Parts: sequence; structure tokens; C-alpha cells
Amino acid sequence: MTSVTSVISVAGRNPDDGDRPVPARRPGGRSARVRARVLDAVRVQLVEHGYDELTVDAVAARAGVHRTTVYRRWRDVGGLLADVLDTAGDDDWRPEDTGDLEGDLAALNREVQEALTARPSVTAALIAASFRSAEAADALRRFWADRYTRCEVVVDRAVRRGEVPEGTDARRLLVAATAPLYHHLVLLRMPPDPRLPGHAARSAALAASAGAFAEP
Amino acid sequence: MTSVTSVISVAGRNPDDGDRPVPARRPGGRSARVRARVLDAVRVQLVEHGYDELTVDAVAARAGVHRTTVYRRWRDVGGLLADVLDTAGDDDWRPEDTGDLEGDLAALNREVQEALTARPSVTAALIAASFRSAEAADALRRFWADRYTRCEVVVDRAVRRGEVPEGTDARRLLVAATAPLYHHLVLLRMPPDPRLPGHAARSAALAASAGAFAEP
Repeated sequence: MTSVTSVISVAGRNPDDGDRPVPARRPGGRSARVRARVLDAVRVQLVEHGYDELTVDAVAARAGVHRTTVYRRWRDVGGLLADVLDTAGDDDWRPEDTGDLEGDLAALNREVQEALTARPSVTAALIAASFRSAEAADALRRFWADRYTRCEVVVDRAVRRGEVPEGTDARRLLVAATAPLYHHLVLLRMPPDPRLPGHAARSAALAASAGAFAEP
Repeated sequence: MTSVTSVISVAGRNPDDGDRPVPARRPGGRSARVRARVLDAVRVQLVEHGYDELTVDAVAARAGVHRTTVYRRWRDVGGLLADVLDTAGDDDWRPEDTGDLEGDLAALNREVQEALTARPSVTAALIAASFRSAEAADALRRFWADRYTRCEVVVDRAVRRGEVPEGTDARRLLVAATAPLYHHLVLLRMPPDPRLPGHAARSAALAASAGAFAEP
């Protein structure tokens, strides 16, 4: 399950793959298979060794492809990171529908918390990399913009149920609900607080129902 | 004016120094003067060239002190960054008292926004550096912990005025109020929204008065 921040588990596996045998060939032809192998290698290299050891050569070696293939297609580390993030958006992720706004926001926040505290966390490593690579920063912005857009349905549903006023600004509400998680974990670097996803959801939902996000 | 995030203007000047003549000698004896010169050099080097060109040698050259002096006292770049942040906490900064909770939070958020969008922004450069240096990350955590502690008086005053319930968790409320600014500017890297400091203050104050931060 990917979230508003989660950018795919390492090596492209889904958590529910469990003991299922991994298919020997990926779908999509040779070019798609090379891309998948290279992007897997970027994720693994990034979480295992950090940005400082993320080089085109290391990625090529890990993926078992020729370095010129990587240079030709991705040019540099920025291009590789941007493609990891762009690929992460190629899924059908949608926010959970729990039946009320606070529940929807809490579910979203639990996904954010899981993505940021996974060991290893590709999400955390990509956020760190975004301070090094302008291309990664741009790709991360695109990725989050897409995730927040997909989450707008949460607010639409709340408006239809009469939980929050018409004209509630979905983006502002979603940022208010999720920002404390990022602040706590990524910037303040505090240990995860299991109550925070629910707390942050509740305070944002209360503010929203009081009309805080429906003002000009 | 330094804020919950602002970590000193470049070269240690205060904004209100204006045209006042800069004293030829800093107070505090030779050792304090060397420290001030070296930490100024760290801030300037960091905002002008970024972490990648922040080396002990570059700092020593810029400060006009011998490199062994810097190595002996600060050991490495992590030690220098940690001292910049620790020094930033040696001030008498207190949050503004505007007479009500929303106003106090908005004033705080305006300081956060100013610190993060200043050109150059030492704060933004130090946040970026905290993803490279564990010592800088620890020092930033200490700095913020101290700033949030100083801001607890904002919540105490609101409790006394009856604006929010007894037992309101000051830290949670302060994080909820300020986090959207950091999220918007540092992680989402969006252009500053002049209404965001007030908006984020208003939604946190509304949630607080509805008891969102007073729950177990």
C-alpha cells in the first residue's frame, strides 16, 4: 500500500507478496524490465548507502546493466531519482473511505507514519535526497501534488455529508492534517508517537468543521 | 528578531542594527571574538556555497584564523554546525504577546515564514545541512526543543484567558500551528503564501478551543 508519501517498497515488492514466488520475468518487454531493475537498484542503493554513494556506476553494477545504458537513459543521479518518484505515481492508490472525515484523515496519517518510519524507508531517503538534487526535489513536488489531488475526494465526501462547510479548501485541510507527522518525524526527528496520526486527524477535522478552511 | 526557527541573521547582525556603526571589537575577550568570527564564517559559507563547500579549511580562511585553531576547537563541520545552532539559542527571544491565542500563533508563524524565506536563509541552509550531519540534526532538535519550550507561555496565557481548556498540550498545539509552514516551504517547496501564517494560526486556535489538544 502506498500513501501520500510512500514511494514504493524497496525492490518494488508489495507487502502482500509474502511467500509468493517472484516471477522470473517482469512484464512489459526488455526496456521495461531494464527500467524496473535500474529503479530497484536506485532504491536499494539509496536506503543502504545514502545519497553520497548513489552513483550511476553503482546503480548500473547493482542492476547488472551496462553503465552507458544508464547514462543514455537517465543521464545522472537526478534523472534516476526523478524517475523513481515519477514511477511511484504510476499506481492506483486512493485514500481509504472510512465513512467520516476524521477516520479518513487518520487512515491517511497512519500511512504517512508507516512510510516515514519503515526500516528502511525509501520515502525518508528520497526526502533527504531532495535536499541534494533539484531534479529529485521537483519530482517529489510533482509526486506530492498528485497525492494531494487524489486525496481531495476525502474532503468532497465530508462536504457532501455536511461534516464541513461548502467551499472548504481541500489542499489546506489536507496539509494541516498531515503536516504534523512530517514535522515530528522528518524535521524534529522525534521517535514516532503512535497517537499522533489520530491526534493530527482529529484537530484538523475539528478545525475544518468549525470552518477554518472555508474562509477567503 | 529570531524566531522558533530563525537561527540568526548572516554575520550575526540584527535587523535593527541598521546604520549603526559596527563596533571594531566584539565583547568577550579574544576567544569569544574568534568564536564569533568562525561561526559568522560558517553561516556565510553555508548560505553562499551550501554544505558541499563547507569545510574546516574554507571556514578558517574566511574567518582569518588558523585551521588548527578550528580543528582543535570544533573538530569538524558537524561540530561547527552544532555550535552555530547552540549559539543561536543563547538569546532572549520570547514569543510576542498580542492578547489572544490566534494572534500569538500568527505572529509566531510570520517569524517562521520570514526565517524560511529570507534571502539568504541561514535557517533553510541549516535544515538542509541537518540531512547531512548527525551533529547538526541533534543540535537543530535541541534548538527547536528550546524554542517550543519558550513558546509554551502562549498556551499558558490562552488557558488563563479561558480561550482553551485546562490540560491543553502546549507542544502538540504549537506543532499543529507551525507545521503547515514548514511543510509548505521546506518539504513541498511551494512559493510562500502570505496568508498561510494567519490561516495556520486560525485553524490551530479553532481546534484548540474545541479541545483538540486537551484529550488524553
